[in-house]
Amino acid sequence: MSDPPPDAKTVTAAVLVIGNEVLSGRTKDANLAYLAGELNALGIRLMEARVIADIEAAIVEALNELRARYDYVFTTGGIGPTHDDITAESVAKAFGVRLLRHPEAVAILERRLAGRAPLNEARLRMANVPEGGELIKNPVSGAPGFRIGNVFVMAGVPSVMQAMFQGLKGALVGGAPMRARTLVTDLPEGQIADPLGALQKAHPETEIGSYPGYSPTGFRVSLVIRSTDAGAIRRAGDELAAMLAGLGGHVLEDRAE
Amino acid sequence: MSDPPPDAKTVTAAVLVIGNEVLSGRTKDANLAYLAGELNALGIRLMEARVIADIEAAIVEALNELRARYDYVFTTGGIGPTHDDITAESVAKAFGVRLLRHPEAVAILERRLAGRAPLNEARLRMANVPEGGELIKNPVSGAPGFRIGNVFVMAGVPSVMQAMFQGLKGALVGGAPMRARTLVTDLPEGQIADPLGALQKAHPETEIGSYPGYSPTGFRVSLVIRSTDAGAIRRAGDELAAMLAGLGGHVLEDRAE
Repeated sequence: MSDPPPDAKTVTAAVLVIGNEVLSGRTKDANLAYLAGELNALGIRLMEARVIADIEAAIVEALNELRARYDYVFTTGGIGPTHDDITAESVAKAFGVRLLRHPEAVAILERRLAGRAPLNEARLRMANVPEGGELIKNPVSGAPGFRIGNVFVMAGVPSVMQAMFQGLKGALVGGAPMRARTLVTDLPEGQIADPLGALQKAHPETEIGSYPGYSPTGFRVSLVIRSTDAGAIRRAGDELAAMLAGLGGHVLEDRAE
Repeated sequence: MSDPPPDAKTVTAAVLVIGNEVLSGRTKDANLAYLAGELNALGIRLMEARVIADIEAAIVEALNELRARYDYVFTTGGIGPTHDDITAESVAKAFGVRLLRHPEAVAILERRLAGRAPLNEARLRMANVPEGGELIKNPVSGAPGFRIGNVFVMAGVPSVMQAMFQGLKGALVGGAPMRARTLVTDLPEGQIADPLGALQKAHPETEIGSYPGYSPTGFRVSLVIRSTDAGAIRRAGDELAAMLAGLGGHVLEDRAE
Protein backbone atom coordinates (compact mmCIF):
# COMPACT_ATOMS: atom_id res chain seq x y z
CA MET A 1 0.00 0.00 0.00
CA SER A 2 1.47 3.33 -0.99
CA ASP A 3 1.40 6.22 1.45
CA PRO A 4 -1.81 8.23 1.15
CA PRO A 5 -1.58 12.03 0.99
CA PRO A 6 -1.43 13.72 4.41
CA ASP A 7 -4.92 15.18 3.97
CA ALA A 8 -6.46 11.78 3.15
CA LYS A 9 -9.88 11.25 4.67
CA THR A 10 -10.30 8.94 7.62
CA VAL A 11 -11.12 5.42 6.48
CA THR A 12 -13.31 3.57 8.98
CA ALA A 13 -14.25 -0.01 9.70
CA ALA A 14 -16.30 -2.24 11.96
CA VAL A 15 -15.82 -5.86 12.99
CA LEU A 16 -18.81 -8.16 13.42
CA VAL A 17 -18.07 -11.38 15.30
CA ILE A 18 -20.88 -13.87 14.68
CA GLY A 19 -21.06 -16.71 17.14
CA ASN A 20 -22.96 -18.01 20.14
CA GLU A 21 -19.76 -19.61 21.44
CA VAL A 22 -18.20 -16.26 22.27
CA LEU A 23 -21.33 -14.99 24.01
CA SER A 24 -21.74 -18.16 26.07
CA GLY A 25 -18.19 -17.85 27.36
CA ARG A 26 -17.17 -21.13 25.75
CA THR A 27 -14.66 -19.52 23.39
CA LYS A 28 -12.47 -16.48 23.92
CA ASP A 29 -12.61 -14.40 20.77
CA ALA A 30 -9.16 -13.81 19.27
CA ASN A 31 -10.27 -12.26 16.00
CA LEU A 32 -11.10 -8.76 17.22
CA ALA A 33 -7.64 -8.13 18.67
CA TYR A 34 -6.00 -9.43 15.48
CA LEU A 35 -8.12 -7.30 13.17
CA ALA A 36 -7.74 -4.21 15.37
CA GLY A 37 -3.97 -4.41 15.08
CA GLU A 38 -3.97 -5.16 11.35
CA LEU A 39 -6.47 -2.44 10.43
CA ASN A 40 -4.67 0.14 12.50
CA ALA A 41 -1.42 -0.69 10.69
CA LEU A 42 -3.19 -0.19 7.35
CA GLY A 43 -4.44 3.28 8.31
CA ILE A 44 -8.01 2.02 8.69
CA ARG A 45 -9.74 3.18 11.82
CA LEU A 46 -11.70 0.49 13.64
CA MET A 47 -14.66 2.42 15.08
CA GLU A 48 -16.79 -0.35 16.50
CA ALA A 49 -16.98 -4.07 17.05
CA ARG A 50 -19.98 -6.21 17.82
CA VAL A 51 -20.39 -9.79 18.92
CA ILE A 52 -23.78 -11.22 18.06
CA ALA A 53 -25.48 -14.60 18.15
CA ASP A 54 -26.18 -16.97 15.25
CA ILE A 55 -29.64 -15.45 14.74
CA GLU A 56 -30.57 -14.33 11.23
CA ALA A 57 -32.47 -11.19 12.26
CA ALA A 58 -29.60 -10.10 14.51
CA ILE A 59 -27.03 -10.58 11.72
CA VAL A 60 -29.14 -8.74 9.14
CA GLU A 61 -29.80 -5.80 11.42
CA ALA A 62 -26.23 -5.39 12.66
CA LEU A 63 -24.77 -5.79 9.19
CA ASN A 64 -27.09 -3.22 7.64
CA GLU A 65 -26.32 -0.72 10.38
CA LEU A 66 -22.57 -1.21 10.19
CA ARG A 67 -22.16 -1.31 6.40
CA ALA A 68 -24.08 1.93 6.03
CA ARG A 69 -22.01 3.64 8.67
CA TYR A 70 -18.43 2.56 7.99
CA ASP A 71 -16.20 2.18 4.95
CA TYR A 72 -15.48 -1.48 5.60
CA VAL A 73 -17.12 -4.25 7.61
CA PHE A 74 -15.31 -7.49 8.47
CA THR A 75 -17.33 -10.43 9.73
CA THR A 76 -15.97 -13.60 11.31
CA GLY A 77 -17.75 -16.89 11.87
CA GLY A 78 -20.71 -18.87 10.61
CA ILE A 79 -19.53 -19.95 7.15
CA GLY A 80 -19.06 -23.68 7.73
CA PRO A 81 -21.28 -26.55 6.56
CA THR A 82 -23.42 -27.12 9.67
CA HIS A 83 -26.97 -25.94 10.43
CA ASP A 84 -25.71 -23.21 12.77
CA ASP A 85 -23.63 -21.62 9.97
CA ILE A 86 -26.08 -19.04 8.67
CA THR A 87 -23.85 -16.10 7.80
CA ALA A 88 -24.00 -16.41 3.98
CA GLU A 89 -27.83 -16.60 3.93
CA SER A 90 -28.05 -13.73 6.38
CA VAL A 91 -25.69 -11.53 4.37
CA ALA A 92 -27.73 -12.20 1.23
CA LYS A 93 -30.88 -11.12 3.11
CA ALA A 94 -29.14 -7.99 4.40
CA PHE A 95 -28.20 -7.02 0.84
CA GLY A 96 -31.56 -8.12 -0.58
CA VAL A 97 -29.94 -10.44 -3.12
CA ARG A 98 -30.21 -14.14 -3.90
CA LEU A 99 -27.88 -16.74 -2.45
CA LEU A 100 -26.19 -18.54 -5.35
CA ARG A 101 -23.88 -21.51 -5.61
CA HIS A 102 -20.58 -20.02 -6.74
CA PRO A 103 -18.97 -22.22 -9.47
CA GLU A 104 -15.41 -21.29 -8.51
CA ALA A 105 -16.11 -22.12 -4.87
CA VAL A 106 -17.54 -25.50 -5.93
CA ALA A 107 -14.37 -26.15 -7.96
CA ILE A 108 -12.19 -25.25 -4.97
CA LEU A 109 -14.10 -27.65 -2.70
CA GLU A 110 -13.92 -30.41 -5.36
CA ARG A 111 -10.15 -30.07 -5.64
CA ARG A 112 -9.76 -29.97 -1.88
CA LEU A 113 -11.82 -33.10 -1.23
CA ALA A 114 -10.78 -35.03 -4.35
CA GLY A 115 -10.83 -38.73 -3.54
CA ARG A 116 -10.91 -38.17 0.21
CA ALA A 117 -14.51 -37.31 0.93
CA PRO A 118 -17.75 -36.75 -0.99
CA LEU A 119 -18.81 -33.22 -1.94
CA ASN A 120 -22.17 -33.70 -0.26
CA GLU A 121 -24.98 -31.18 0.11
CA ALA A 122 -23.71 -29.96 3.49
CA ARG A 123 -20.24 -29.24 2.10
CA LEU A 124 -21.77 -27.55 -0.96
CA ARG A 125 -23.39 -25.03 1.41
CA MET A 126 -19.88 -23.62 1.83
CA ALA A 127 -20.00 -22.65 -1.86
CA ASN A 128 -23.12 -20.50 -1.36
CA VAL A 129 -22.36 -16.84 -1.91
CA PRO A 130 -24.72 -13.85 -2.15
CA GLU A 131 -25.23 -12.72 -5.76
CA GLY A 132 -22.45 -10.34 -6.75
CA GLY A 133 -20.05 -11.64 -4.11
CA GLU A 134 -16.39 -12.33 -4.90
CA LEU A 135 -14.47 -15.12 -3.22
CA ILE A 136 -11.91 -14.60 -0.47
CA LYS A 137 -9.29 -17.33 -0.68
CA ASN A 138 -8.71 -19.74 2.18
CA PRO A 139 -5.23 -21.25 1.89
CA VAL A 140 -5.63 -23.13 5.18
CA SER A 141 -8.71 -25.29 4.75
CA GLY A 142 -10.10 -24.50 1.28
CA ALA A 143 -13.65 -23.28 1.87
CA PRO A 144 -13.58 -19.63 0.81
CA GLY A 145 -15.02 -16.49 2.36
CA PHE A 146 -16.49 -13.75 0.21
CA ARG A 147 -16.69 -10.04 -0.29
CA ILE A 148 -19.87 -8.24 -1.21
CA GLY A 149 -19.91 -4.46 -1.43
CA ASN A 150 -17.93 -3.15 1.52
CA VAL A 151 -18.44 -6.33 3.57
CA PHE A 152 -15.77 -9.02 3.94
CA VAL A 153 -17.08 -12.34 5.24
CA MET A 154 -14.43 -14.54 6.84
CA ALA A 155 -14.16 -17.75 8.85
CA GLY A 156 -14.25 -17.83 12.64
CA VAL A 157 -11.31 -20.20 13.21
CA PRO A 158 -8.48 -17.73 13.92
CA SER A 159 -5.80 -19.38 11.76
CA VAL A 160 -8.21 -19.45 8.80
CA MET A 161 -9.45 -15.91 9.38
CA GLN A 162 -5.90 -14.61 9.57
CA ALA A 163 -4.89 -16.31 6.33
CA MET A 164 -7.99 -14.89 4.60
CA PHE A 165 -7.22 -11.40 5.87
CA GLN A 166 -3.60 -11.56 4.75
CA GLY A 167 -4.85 -12.47 1.27
CA LEU A 168 -7.44 -9.73 1.01
CA LYS A 169 -5.71 -6.83 2.71
CA GLY A 170 -3.94 -5.73 -0.47
CA ALA A 171 -7.37 -4.71 -1.81
CA LEU A 172 -8.09 -2.37 1.13
CA VAL A 173 -7.49 1.35 0.73
CA GLY A 174 -6.29 2.88 3.97
CA GLY A 175 -6.16 6.49 5.06
CA ALA A 176 -3.29 8.22 6.72
CA PRO A 177 -1.88 5.70 9.18
CA MET A 178 -2.40 6.44 12.84
CA ARG A 179 0.88 6.81 14.70
CA ALA A 180 1.32 6.68 18.44
CA ARG A 181 3.73 7.57 21.18
CA THR A 182 3.35 6.03 24.61
CA LEU A 183 4.80 7.42 27.82
CA VAL A 184 4.53 5.26 30.93
CA THR A 185 4.63 7.00 34.28
CA ASP A 186 4.45 6.17 37.96
CA LEU A 187 2.28 9.19 38.73
CA PRO A 188 -1.37 8.43 39.56
CA GLU A 189 -4.05 9.49 37.09
CA GLY A 190 -5.66 11.76 39.68
CA GLN A 191 -2.51 13.87 39.85
CA ILE A 192 -1.97 14.28 36.12
CA ALA A 193 -5.59 14.51 34.98
CA ASP A 194 -5.96 18.30 35.04
CA PRO A 195 -2.74 19.21 33.17
CA LEU A 196 -3.33 16.24 30.84
CA GLY A 197 -6.75 17.60 29.94
CA ALA A 198 -5.15 21.00 29.26
CA LEU A 199 -2.55 19.30 27.05
CA GLN A 200 -5.31 17.56 25.09
CA LYS A 201 -7.07 20.91 24.57
CA ALA A 202 -3.80 22.50 23.39
CA HIS A 203 -3.21 19.67 20.88
CA PRO A 204 -6.60 18.98 19.30
CA GLU A 205 -4.95 17.29 16.31
CA THR A 206 -3.92 14.46 18.66
CA GLU A 207 -5.91 12.05 20.77
CA ILE A 208 -4.49 11.53 24.22
CA GLY A 209 -5.58 8.48 26.18
CA SER A 210 -4.76 7.54 29.74
CA TYR A 211 -4.71 3.83 30.62
CA PRO A 212 -4.09 2.77 34.19
CA GLY A 213 -3.08 -0.74 35.05
CA TYR A 214 -1.13 -3.00 37.34
CA SER A 215 2.34 -4.08 36.23
CA PRO A 216 4.65 -6.52 38.03
CA THR A 217 6.51 -3.49 39.42
CA GLY A 218 3.43 -1.64 40.65
CA PHE A 219 0.67 0.64 39.48
CA ARG A 220 1.45 2.38 36.20
CA VAL A 221 -0.31 4.77 33.85
CA SER A 222 0.29 4.57 30.10
CA LEU A 223 -0.32 7.86 28.32
CA VAL A 224 -0.85 7.33 24.61
CA ILE A 225 -0.77 10.15 22.08
CA ARG A 226 -2.24 9.18 18.71
CA SER A 227 -2.42 11.15 15.48
CA THR A 228 -1.82 10.84 11.77
CA ASP A 229 0.61 13.76 12.14
CA ALA A 230 4.02 12.63 13.40
CA GLY A 231 5.11 16.20 14.18
CA ALA A 232 2.04 16.81 16.32
CA ILE A 233 2.75 13.63 18.27
CA ARG A 234 6.35 14.68 18.86
CA ARG A 235 5.34 18.14 20.10
CA ALA A 236 2.58 16.88 22.40
CA GLY A 237 4.82 14.08 23.68
CA ASP A 238 7.67 16.39 24.51
CA GLU A 239 5.32 18.70 26.40
CA LEU A 240 3.86 15.70 28.22
CA ALA A 241 7.33 14.48 29.26
CA ALA A 242 8.14 17.96 30.61
CA MET A 243 4.80 18.08 32.42
CA LEU A 244 5.39 14.71 34.11
CA ALA A 245 8.88 15.79 35.18
CA GLY A 246 7.47 19.05 36.54
CA LEU A 247 5.03 17.06 38.68
CA GLY A 248 7.90 15.04 40.12
CA GLY A 249 7.11 11.91 38.16
CA HIS A 250 9.26 9.54 36.15
CA VAL A 251 8.89 8.59 32.51
CA LEU A 252 9.52 4.84 32.77
CA GLU A 253 9.07 4.22 29.05
CA ASP A 254 8.81 6.47 26.02
CA ARG A 255 8.19 4.57 22.83
CA ALA A 256 6.93 5.30 19.33
CA GLU A 257 4.53 2.85 17.68
CA MET B 1 -29.22 -17.00 44.15
CA SER B 2 -32.06 -19.49 44.54
CA ASP B 3 -33.09 -21.72 41.66
CA PRO B 4 -35.73 -20.11 39.46
CA PRO B 5 -38.77 -22.17 38.49
CA PRO B 6 -38.27 -24.32 35.37
CA ASP B 7 -40.60 -22.14 33.30
CA ALA B 8 -38.73 -18.94 34.22
CA LYS B 9 -38.41 -16.48 31.37
CA THR B 10 -35.11 -15.99 29.62
CA VAL B 11 -33.12 -13.18 31.23
CA THR B 12 -30.93 -11.35 28.73
CA ALA B 13 -27.94 -9.04 28.87
CA ALA B 14 -25.52 -7.04 26.75
CA VAL B 15 -21.94 -5.96 27.44
CA LEU B 16 -20.71 -2.56 26.28
CA VAL B 17 -16.93 -2.16 26.29
CA ILE B 18 -16.05 1.53 26.11
CA GLY B 19 -12.50 2.28 25.05
CA ASN B 20 -10.40 3.43 22.14
CA GLU B 21 -7.54 1.26 23.37
CA VAL B 22 -9.34 -1.96 22.45
CA LEU B 23 -10.28 -0.67 18.99
CA SER B 24 -6.76 0.55 18.25
CA GLY B 25 -5.34 -2.88 19.02
CA ARG B 26 -3.31 -1.51 21.93
CA THR B 27 -5.16 -3.51 24.57
CA LYS B 28 -6.71 -6.97 24.32
CA ASP B 29 -10.08 -6.84 26.00
CA ALA B 30 -10.41 -9.38 28.80
CA ASN B 31 -13.71 -8.19 30.22
CA LEU B 32 -16.07 -9.69 27.66
CA ALA B 33 -14.85 -13.24 28.18
CA TYR B 34 -15.05 -12.84 31.95
CA LEU B 35 -18.59 -11.44 31.90
CA ALA B 36 -19.75 -14.01 29.35
CA GLY B 37 -18.72 -16.83 31.67
CA GLU B 38 -20.12 -15.22 34.80
CA LEU B 39 -23.47 -14.27 33.27
CA ASN B 40 -23.93 -17.68 31.77
CA ALA B 41 -23.32 -19.27 35.19
CA LEU B 42 -26.01 -16.99 36.66
CA GLY B 43 -28.61 -18.05 34.09
CA ILE B 44 -28.38 -14.71 32.30
CA ARG B 45 -28.12 -14.95 28.57
CA LEU B 46 -25.52 -12.64 27.01
CA MET B 47 -27.11 -11.73 23.67
CA GLU B 48 -24.74 -9.12 22.34
CA ALA B 49 -21.51 -7.29 23.08
CA ARG B 50 -20.24 -4.07 21.58
CA VAL B 51 -16.91 -2.33 21.72
CA ILE B 52 -17.14 1.39 21.04
CA ALA B 53 -14.87 4.40 21.19
CA ASP B 54 -14.72 7.14 23.85
CA ILE B 55 -17.18 9.28 21.88
CA GLU B 56 -20.21 10.64 23.73
CA ALA B 57 -22.68 10.24 20.86
CA ALA B 58 -21.55 6.66 20.30
CA ILE B 59 -21.95 5.78 23.98
CA VAL B 60 -25.40 7.41 24.24
CA GLU B 61 -26.70 5.68 21.12
CA ALA B 62 -25.37 2.23 21.95
CA LEU B 63 -26.52 2.41 25.55
CA ASN B 64 -30.03 3.49 24.65
CA GLU B 65 -30.34 0.70 22.09
CA LEU B 66 -29.03 -1.97 24.41
CA ARG B 67 -30.85 -0.97 27.60
CA ALA B 68 -34.18 -0.93 25.77
CA ARG B 69 -33.56 -4.33 24.27
CA TYR B 70 -32.06 -6.42 27.08
CA ASP B 71 -32.79 -7.00 30.77
CA TYR B 72 -29.30 -5.95 31.89
CA VAL B 73 -26.47 -3.93 30.38
CA PHE B 74 -22.93 -4.03 31.76
CA THR B 75 -20.46 -1.36 30.68
CA THR B 76 -16.71 -1.38 31.25
CA GLY B 77 -14.27 1.49 30.94
CA GLY B 78 -14.20 5.27 31.02
CA ILE B 79 -14.86 6.01 34.70
CA GLY B 80 -11.44 7.33 35.74
CA PRO B 81 -10.39 10.94 36.43
CA THR B 82 -8.87 11.87 33.06
CA HIS B 83 -10.39 13.87 30.18
CA ASP B 84 -10.97 10.71 28.12
CA ASP B 85 -13.15 9.20 30.87
CA ILE B 86 -16.59 10.30 29.71
CA THR B 87 -18.77 7.33 30.59
CA ALA B 88 -20.63 8.88 33.57
CA GLU B 89 -21.57 12.05 31.63
CA SER B 90 -22.59 9.96 28.64
CA VAL B 91 -24.78 7.64 30.71
CA ALA B 92 -26.49 10.67 32.30
CA LYS B 93 -27.21 12.01 28.78
CA ALA B 94 -28.53 8.62 27.67
CA PHE B 95 -30.95 8.57 30.61
CA GLY B 96 -31.78 12.28 30.28
CA VAL B 97 -30.83 13.00 33.89
CA ARG B 98 -28.36 15.33 35.59
CA LEU B 99 -24.88 14.28 36.59
CA LEU B 100 -24.53 14.81 40.35
CA ARG B 101 -21.67 14.56 42.77
CA HIS B 102 -22.54 11.56 44.93
CA PRO B 103 -21.82 12.27 48.64
CA GLU B 104 -21.06 8.64 49.49
CA ALA B 105 -18.63 8.42 46.57
CA VAL B 106 -16.91 11.59 47.77
CA ALA B 107 -16.61 10.07 51.25
CA ILE B 108 -15.11 6.87 49.79
CA LEU B 109 -12.52 8.85 47.83
CA GLU B 110 -11.70 10.96 50.90
CA ARG B 111 -11.09 7.90 53.03
CA ARG B 112 -9.04 6.27 50.28
CA LEU B 113 -6.77 9.27 49.73
CA ALA B 114 -6.61 10.45 53.35
CA GLY B 115 -3.25 12.08 53.94
CA ARG B 116 -1.69 10.60 50.82
CA ALA B 117 -2.97 12.81 48.02
CA PRO B 118 -5.34 15.73 47.59
CA LEU B 119 -8.95 15.14 46.57
CA ASN B 120 -8.60 17.50 43.64
CA GLU B 121 -11.21 18.36 41.00
CA ALA B 122 -10.01 15.61 38.66
CA ARG B 123 -10.36 12.94 41.33
CA LEU B 124 -13.78 14.32 42.33
CA ARG B 125 -14.97 13.58 38.78
CA MET B 126 -14.89 9.93 39.87
CA ALA B 127 -17.69 10.76 42.34
CA ASN B 128 -19.99 12.01 39.56
CA VAL B 129 -23.00 9.76 39.17
CA PRO B 130 -26.16 10.21 37.09
CA GLU B 131 -29.13 11.26 39.23
CA GLY B 132 -30.79 8.17 40.69
CA GLY B 133 -27.68 6.03 40.36
CA GLU B 134 -26.53 3.73 43.17
CA LEU B 135 -22.88 3.03 43.83
CA ILE B 136 -21.11 -0.18 42.90
CA LYS B 137 -18.32 -0.84 45.38
CA ASN B 138 -14.70 -1.05 44.26
CA PRO B 139 -12.69 -2.96 46.87
CA VAL B 140 -9.53 -2.80 44.73
CA SER B 141 -8.91 0.89 44.14
CA GLY B 142 -11.78 2.74 45.81
CA ALA B 143 -13.43 4.77 43.05
CA PRO B 144 -16.87 3.23 42.67
CA GLY B 145 -18.95 2.30 39.66
CA PHE B 146 -22.69 2.81 39.63
CA ARG B 147 -25.97 1.26 38.68
CA ILE B 148 -28.78 3.22 37.09
CA GLY B 149 -31.93 1.44 35.94
CA ASN B 150 -30.83 -1.80 34.28
CA VAL B 151 -27.35 -0.47 33.48
CA PHE B 152 -24.26 -1.39 35.54
CA VAL B 153 -21.28 0.89 34.94
CA MET B 154 -17.93 -0.65 35.86
CA ALA B 155 -14.23 0.07 35.51
CA GLY B 156 -12.15 -1.08 32.55
CA VAL B 157 -9.15 -2.44 34.48
CA PRO B 158 -9.96 -6.18 34.62
CA SER B 159 -9.07 -6.76 38.27
CA VAL B 160 -11.25 -3.81 39.31
CA MET B 161 -14.11 -4.78 37.03
CA GLN B 162 -14.07 -8.34 38.33
CA ALA B 163 -14.16 -7.20 41.96
CA MET B 164 -17.07 -4.87 41.15
CA PHE B 165 -18.95 -7.65 39.40
CA GLN B 166 -18.44 -10.09 42.27
CA GLY B 167 -19.92 -7.47 44.60
CA LEU B 168 -22.98 -6.69 42.49
CA LYS B 169 -23.89 -10.09 41.13
CA GLY B 170 -25.98 -10.99 44.17
CA ALA B 171 -28.45 -8.32 43.02
CA LEU B 172 -28.95 -9.89 39.59
CA VAL B 173 -31.96 -12.10 38.97
CA GLY B 174 -31.12 -14.92 36.59
CA GLY B 175 -33.39 -17.20 34.62
CA ALA B 176 -33.09 -20.93 34.33
CA PRO B 177 -29.36 -21.60 34.03
CA MET B 178 -28.13 -22.79 30.65
CA ARG B 179 -26.51 -26.20 30.85
CA ALA B 180 -24.29 -27.74 28.23
CA ARG B 181 -22.86 -31.05 27.09
CA THR B 182 -19.92 -31.11 24.74
CA LEU B 183 -18.89 -34.03 22.56
CA VAL B 184 -15.58 -33.78 20.74
CA THR B 185 -15.15 -35.85 17.62
CA ASP B 186 -12.54 -36.53 14.94
CA LEU B 187 -15.15 -36.58 12.17
CA PRO B 188 -15.12 -33.56 9.84
CA GLU B 189 -18.03 -31.12 9.95
CA GLY B 190 -18.89 -31.84 6.32
CA GLN B 191 -19.61 -35.46 7.16
CA ILE B 192 -21.79 -34.86 10.20
CA ALA B 193 -23.59 -31.71 9.07
CA ASP B 194 -26.69 -33.34 7.57
CA PRO B 195 -27.52 -35.72 10.44
CA LEU B 196 -26.56 -33.00 12.92
CA GLY B 197 -29.08 -30.63 11.31
CA ALA B 198 -31.71 -33.39 11.58
CA LEU B 199 -30.81 -33.89 15.25
CA GLN B 200 -31.25 -30.15 15.88
CA LYS B 201 -34.69 -30.27 14.22
CA ALA B 202 -35.68 -33.26 16.35
CA HIS B 203 -34.60 -31.48 19.56
CA PRO B 204 -35.83 -27.90 19.19
CA GLU B 205 -35.63 -27.38 22.97
CA THR B 206 -31.83 -27.57 22.65
CA GLU B 207 -29.34 -25.47 20.72
CA ILE B 208 -26.67 -27.50 19.01
CA GLY B 209 -23.50 -25.74 17.91
CA SER B 210 -20.61 -27.12 15.90
CA TYR B 211 -17.17 -25.60 16.49
CA PRO B 212 -14.24 -26.77 14.42
CA GLY B 213 -10.68 -26.08 15.47
CA TYR B 214 -7.13 -27.28 15.49
CA SER B 215 -5.89 -29.12 18.57
CA PRO B 216 -2.35 -30.36 19.22
CA THR B 217 -3.50 -33.83 18.14
CA GLY B 218 -5.17 -32.72 14.90
CA PHE B 219 -8.39 -31.27 13.59
CA ARG B 220 -11.32 -31.64 15.97
CA VAL B 221 -14.97 -30.66 16.03
CA SER B 222 -16.66 -29.77 19.33
CA LEU B 223 -20.40 -30.34 19.28
CA VAL B 224 -22.11 -28.40 22.05
CA ILE B 225 -25.70 -29.05 23.12
CA ARG B 226 -27.15 -26.27 25.27
CA SER B 227 -30.48 -26.03 27.02
CA THR B 228 -32.05 -25.11 30.31
CA ASP B 229 -33.52 -28.63 30.36
CA ALA B 230 -30.99 -31.21 31.59
CA GLY B 231 -33.12 -34.13 30.38
CA ALA B 232 -33.31 -32.71 26.88
CA ILE B 233 -29.53 -32.33 26.81
CA ARG B 234 -29.05 -35.92 27.92
CA ARG B 235 -31.42 -37.28 25.27
CA ALA B 236 -29.97 -35.23 22.42
CA GLY B 237 -26.41 -36.00 23.55
CA ASP B 238 -27.02 -39.73 23.68
CA GLU B 239 -28.51 -39.65 20.18
CA LEU B 240 -25.55 -37.59 19.00
CA ALA B 241 -23.05 -40.09 20.45
CA ALA B 242 -24.88 -42.92 18.68
CA MET B 243 -24.92 -40.94 15.42
CA LEU B 244 -21.17 -40.29 15.56
CA ALA B 245 -20.48 -43.97 16.26
CA GLY B 246 -22.75 -44.95 13.35
CA LEU B 247 -20.68 -42.71 11.05
CA GLY B 248 -17.49 -44.48 12.16
CA GLY B 249 -16.28 -41.60 14.29
CA HIS B 250 -14.89 -41.45 17.78
CA VAL B 251 -16.18 -39.45 20.73
CA LEU B 252 -12.89 -38.16 22.12
CA GLU B 253 -14.50 -36.25 24.97
CA ASP B 254 -18.01 -36.15 26.43
CA ARG B 255 -18.37 -33.63 29.20
CA ALA B 256 -21.15 -31.83 31.00
CA GLU B 257 -20.75 -28.12 31.81
